[in-house]
Amino acid sequence: MIRTGTLALAITIFGVSTLSAAKRTREEASPVYGVTLPKGYRHWTLISVAQENGRHNDIRAILGNAIAVKAFREKRRPFPDGAVIVRLAWRYQSSPRNDAVFPAPQSFIAGEPTNIQVSVKDSRRYPGSGGWGYGQFERGIANPSATLAQSCFACHAKLKKGDDLVFTDWAP
Amino acid sequence: MIRTGTLALAITIFGVSTLSAAKRTREEASPVYGVTLPKGYRHWTLISVAQENGRHNDIRAILGNAIAVKAFREKRRPFPDGAVIVRLAWRYQSSPRNDAVFPAPQSFIAGEPTNIQVSVKDSRRYPGSGGWGYGQFERGIANPSATLAQSCFACHAKLKKGDDLVFTDWAP
Repeated sequence: MIRTGTLALAITIFGVSTLSAAKRTREEASPVYGVTLPKGYRHWTLISVAQENGRHNDIRAILGNAIAVKAFREKRRPFPDGAVIVRLAWRYQSSPRNDAVFPAPQSFIAGEPTNIQVSVKDSRRYPGSGGWGYGQFERGIANPSATLAQSCFACHAKLKKGDDLVFTDWAP
Repeated sequence: MIRTGTLALAITIFGVSTLSAAKRTREEASPVYGVTLPKGYRHWTLISVAQENGRHNDIRAILGNAIAVKAFREKRRPFPDGAVIVRLAWRYQSSPRNDAVFPAPQSFIAGEPTNIQVSVKDSRRYPGSGGWGYGQFERGIANPSATLAQSCFACHAKLKKGDDLVFTDWAP
């Protein structure tokens, strides 16, 4: 009886663990490319900032790991393998607090976070997309849409060849 | 003859060195507060981003040192001594390159850098300005205007007391 119980418990635990691992992997890695949110990215060096109107209506920051930062600073294109770029974005919203202090309503700040997009340069792993793998994350979870993941390359590929599929330049 | 020459040379070198040092100090430190551009600040952690219209017409990034980042993340106010906040700003300008790729003109990026403002928390050194010392820098040189330096506190002091004279919150 004890043995059966132990076995049942073991099966249950094993089953749950396997399920959790599968779920975790699915939630952490982007479809198509298997890109994950890099550890510690929030403390990476700022490359530049931007603001998008239209459907996005966001304000953004682009961060990079050490390999990416070096390439950005040296204007090196194409980026070397190992370069990782993380684009954070937040709702673009006016700031009543700031506007109350400034002489006129003029201040816009980062509101709720929208999504984070990650670009990983690995020319051997991603030969079909110019050497870049992509992922989009909302609240730390990879967006599961393969169509969305594929749209990254489709859009970045519209840039001229010398840009190596990257929109951003280093902001001095 | 050689001795006189050597002496003259020594005086010249000493004179030039002293002048350079004085000039360097004047260029590096803000008036009123003596705040300098912190070494390595460009690689500090991003706190948030913002965009100012009106006279500024800029897009900005706020970076912080480790003490500031910890306080921002923990919503700790007032900031502890040693916190340093660096606000970078660039011309807010549309990006024809991005707009050619996107479905409509909607993209704004960082243009030429305008100025960098530094806030240093040191309650013993700056008791007359809420514990904060300020400096503004253009192309790495401290703006020499005492009126400008004093206007920092005058403006930040308009915020409510609980903000500890800081406009920015952590962008998650």
